[in-house]
Amino acid sequence: MAPDAVMAEAELSLPEAMAGCAQRVEQALEALLALPEGAEARLTEAMRYATLGGGKRLRAFLAMQGAALFAVSETCAARVAAAIEMLHAYSLVHDDLPAMDDDDLRRGRPSTHRAFDEATAILAGDALQTRAFEVLAEPDTHSDPQTRCELVAALGAAAGCRGMAGGQMIDMLAQGAPLTQAEIVRLQALKTGRLIQFSAEAGAILGRAPWPQRQSLAGYGRDLGAAFQIADDLLDALGSTEETGKTAGKDAAAGKATLVAILGPERARAQAELLAEQAASHLDGFGRRADLLRRLAAYVVSRRS
Amino acid sequence: MAPDAVMAEAELSLPEAMAGCAQRVEQALEALLALPEGAEARLTEAMRYATLGGGKRLRAFLAMQGAALFAVSETCAARVAAAIEMLHAYSLVHDDLPAMDDDDLRRGRPSTHRAFDEATAILAGDALQTRAFEVLAEPDTHSDPQTRCELVAALGAAAGCRGMAGGQMIDMLAQGAPLTQAEIVRLQALKTGRLIQFSAEAGAILGRAPWPQRQSLAGYGRDLGAAFQIADDLLDALGSTEETGKTAGKDAAAGKATLVAILGPERARAQAELLAEQAASHLDGFGRRADLLRRLAAYVVSRRS
Repeated sequence: MAPDAVMAEAELSLPEAMAGCAQRVEQALEALLALPEGAEARLTEAMRYATLGGGKRLRAFLAMQGAALFAVSETCAARVAAAIEMLHAYSLVHDDLPAMDDDDLRRGRPSTHRAFDEATAILAGDALQTRAFEVLAEPDTHSDPQTRCELVAALGAAAGCRGMAGGQMIDMLAQGAPLTQAEIVRLQALKTGRLIQFSAEAGAILGRAPWPQRQSLAGYGRDLGAAFQIADDLLDALGSTEETGKTAGKDAAAGKATLVAILGPERARAQAELLAEQAASHLDGFGRRADLLRRLAAYVVSRRS
Repeated sequence: MAPDAVMAEAELSLPEAMAGCAQRVEQALEALLALPEGAEARLTEAMRYATLGGGKRLRAFLAMQGAALFAVSETCAARVAAAIEMLHAYSLVHDDLPAMDDDDLRRGRPSTHRAFDEATAILAGDALQTRAFEVLAEPDTHSDPQTRCELVAALGAAAGCRGMAGGQMIDMLAQGAPLTQAEIVRLQALKTGRLIQFSAEAGAILGRAPWPQRQSLAGYGRDLGAAFQIADDLLDALGSTEETGKTAGKDAAAGKATLVAILGPERARAQAELLAEQAASHLDGFGRRADLLRRLAAYVVSRRS
């Protein structure tokens, strides 16, 4: 996207910009998850069910806005955003399984193992992860293979046993053995933070940005992810199932320690707001072009669903 | 490996060469699955349990022997072989889950969800897949990022919804609805054939081999995979649990249609032998350097475990 287009987009309201991005990523996902012939099509149907038509597309928005800062083509950015959303969708499908969080509801609809069956949900999560890496490695994602390799390796590091999956492991082990505040912060940095950080950083990787700018976006993503998670826990503790499209109160029911439980809602909200401000401060070097990302930081702690 | 080393290795017996390869890949896996600090280490423990110390390492052997034909460094080839074994191990961990094949035994030991628990097994499979792609994309795997991208994209295509995972989906749908011979052949080409084909092809990708030679190795892998699967079904039908380290007779118990059930053991064995010969014929252009791969084709249809 040319700098002018970035400026024009910065004039959009955040909800308009997020809706536009969600629509763009939906198109990319539609194309990348085309149904094959044969009986195996049922697997792609489950992958599409788990991925299409839902969610705020926060991670996709981060990737596309980050990429726009470096004038990356929207087509390339949308593929990376779609790959991240597939990776995220895989993690949700597996988290919802009976052996994991056992959740029947996701984005206001039956979770994938309820809409299909458990075996299909396991396989659909598996194949979504595969497709995410495959898409990043394909030539259409970026003309420079070095850039594509960096995307694959960085997503792998964010999603694997030292990142998202490692965080989920800690979360599971913590059920029944309460964590300290520091342990919760670390758990959340791994479980949700690393992928959100990667989403923000991906734009800089795609744009072959100088290292300090890539670090700025990574720092923004890290703090934004932490703020987002506290806000999510607040919504779970205080919101309704109807508003959030997810089963409300499930953290407390599962005996999960969250910062909200330890700090209480007011101090937790203050902490989330502090982190959101800190996130925005990483963007100082980008001028007005980063306005939407700044507004996003304020939004993630004020949202009601 | 230099051509001389290839010739020297061709003098080894197949069991010696396979044992040497298994040892080399075990070292690579040990290093690539190093235990992290923190509670998340349990996840890596499960990943190591599922991956280390077991199996014939057929896929690793294919990758390393293929790479040796093109004088690829053994260090690079061992990383690719390890990535393929991680991908394969992930598929076994998930296939064994209660919602899938519900198998308590793998490689003569409790399957991962029995040794740990179901949630940990799901996560360990997930993180093994992630690690496989991450390893392929890292600079140590090959100096040329284009080659690394090709490996990632080709493994993604082989493992995903149009490959291994798609085949597993067909297999699950077929339980209770018997398949024709042609459908079984297609199912097996996807479910096990595509990854075996990729294993053989990976050496050619790593070696930046000319297209015809890459196609020869792919053809070899495709026919070898088909022969291997029939031999596997014969072992399941006729072997004992003790010999194979897997629960014997489980295909028949699950009502799964196999070529053995349709053709009978004798015609199925003849078909496997024909495919093994056909596999070897793809190697004609490689001369004596491919002797171990030729012997492997004979071995997969004569093995007893």
